[in-house]
Amino acid sequence: MSKIIGEGTQPLICTPLVGRNQEIVLAELANVLEKKPDIIEWRADFFEAIANTDEVVALANTIKEIAGDLTIIFTIRSIREGGQTIPLSDSEAMELNAAICTNTSVEYVDCELSNLPEHFQQLCKVARENSTKIIASFHNFNCTPSKESLEERFTQAEEYGADVAKVAVMPKTLEDVLTLLSATLEAKNKLKIPVISMSMGELGAVTRLFGGVFGSTVSFAVGQSSSAPGQVPIEDLNTVFHIVKKSMGM
Amino acid sequence: MSKIIGEGTQPLICTPLVGRNQEIVLAELANVLEKKPDIIEWRADFFEAIANTDEVVALANTIKEIAGDLTIIFTIRSIREGGQTIPLSDSEAMELNAAICTNTSVEYVDCELSNLPEHFQQLCKVARENSTKIIASFHNFNCTPSKESLEERFTQAEEYGADVAKVAVMPKTLEDVLTLLSATLEAKNKLKIPVISMSMGELGAVTRLFGGVFGSTVSFAVGQSSSAPGQVPIEDLNTVFHIVKKSMGM
Repeated sequence: MSKIIGEGTQPLICTPLVGRNQEIVLAELANVLEKKPDIIEWRADFFEAIANTDEVVALANTIKEIAGDLTIIFTIRSIREGGQTIPLSDSEAMELNAAICTNTSVEYVDCELSNLPEHFQQLCKVARENSTKIIASFHNFNCTPSKESLEERFTQAEEYGADVAKVAVMPKTLEDVLTLLSATLEAKNKLKIPVISMSMGELGAVTRLFGGVFGSTVSFAVGQSSSAPGQVPIEDLNTVFHIVKKSMGM
Repeated sequence: MSKIIGEGTQPLICTPLVGRNQEIVLAELANVLEKKPDIIEWRADFFEAIANTDEVVALANTIKEIAGDLTIIFTIRSIREGGQTIPLSDSEAMELNAAICTNTSVEYVDCELSNLPEHFQQLCKVARENSTKIIASFHNFNCTPSKESLEERFTQAEEYGADVAKVAVMPKTLEDVLTLLSATLEAKNKLKIPVISMSMGELGAVTRLFGGVFGSTVSFAVGQSSSAPGQVPIEDLNTVFHIVKKSMGM
C-alpha cells in the first residue's frame, strides 16, 4: 500500500525527480529508490517534453509502475513560485494536471494557490472523480510573510477543497523560521486536512529536520539532485526522525 | 583548555553527576567521562554530606582533578526549583557556593535567580575575585511562563552580574515549546552574556536537540542517570548536532 500524507507518527520523506528527459528521470528514479523514500515527487516543470501530454502521461505511468508501492506526487511548479520556465500557459498546465488525474494512478497532484480559483476548483473536481488527491501549495522564495498571512494560505487550501495544504517560504532571520513553525502548529490544530511546511535555505534547514514535531507531514529531501535550497540528505532525515521520535517518547 | 560556555559553533554537552556519596559520584564520573561530554555538572543537592563543607570542597577538587580539561559546573538546586531536599538554609547554601569559588578551580557555579538579590550579588563578588563564573538559573517545573516573562528572567540574570543566563521550563503544549525558543532567540540577540535554555519533558525534548540553532549554548544530556525530565543520551545529541551543523552550512 502506498503511504498517505498525514498518516503515521513521523513525517514522510519525499525526494524529487528533476531530470529533463525520460532517460535522466528514470536513472534518477533508480538512484533514489535505493534510498527508500516514502514519496517521489516528479517535478515535471524540469521535463523538456512537458508540452507533449501523451509523453508526460506515459512517463508518469512508467514512474508509478517502477516505484511500485511508493506514493507519487506530480508537480508542475510555476516560474512564479520557484519552478522552471515551461512552454505551457497556466490553463494548459491545469489541463495537463487533469490528464494526470484521469489517465494515471499517480496519488497526488500539486497545484499552486496562485492559480485562478475556478481553475483550481475545476482540477479538484476532476481529481475527486479519479480518486487523485490535490496538494494546494504556496511558495515564497524571497521572504517569510507574517504568521497571519501564512495561516491564511493554509486555510485557503482547505477552503479551496484541497486534500493537503503546503507552505514553503524563505527565511531572512531565525525569527522567520519560528514564525513558519508557529503558523504550521496553528494550522495543524485548526485544519481538517494535513499540512506540509518548510522554511527554505540553510537557515530554514532545521524545519526539514524537526518540522514534523510542529505538524509538517512531509519533509523534502535531496534525491540524486536537490529541487529547492536547504534540502537534507534522506539518510540524515531518517537518523534525526528516529532520535526525535525516541526522545519524545513517540 | 576547558571549554567556555558561549564559545564554539554548536552547543556544549553537559552531563550531570547525581550520586548520593563520594563512591557513587566518582563511579558516575568514570562512566560519563567515557561518553566525552564537554561539561560535567555536579548536582551537589543529591550529595548526602552536603552540610560538610570540607567534604564537598574536597570532592569538588577530586572531580576537577579526574575530569582534567572538562569544564565543571557546581550546582545546589533548591527544592523550590526542582532540586533535592537538603539540610542547608539558602544562606548556608550560598556560603557553600562561595567556598567552592574560593577553594576549588571549578569553572562555574549555578545560582538561582530566586535567591535574595543581595545574596546573589555577594556570590558574584566572591566568584569574580576567584575567576569563577556564575550561571544565573530560573526553573519552572509546572509550566512555561509568557515570552515576556521568560525574557525578563534572561535580562535579570545579566543585570545581576551573572556570566551565563539559564532558563528551564516545563511545556504543556507545543506552543509553549515555541515560546521558549522564541524567548531564547530574543535573549541571544539582546544580551551580552551567553544563554542556556530548555523546554523540559518529552514534549520539550526537541529543544535539547535543536535549541542551539536558536541560541542555547549548552544541552544537558543523560549521563549515567538523568537529572531532569526529557534529557537525551549524549550519543544522540552528538549525532543531531553534527547533522544540524552540516545542514545549516555551519
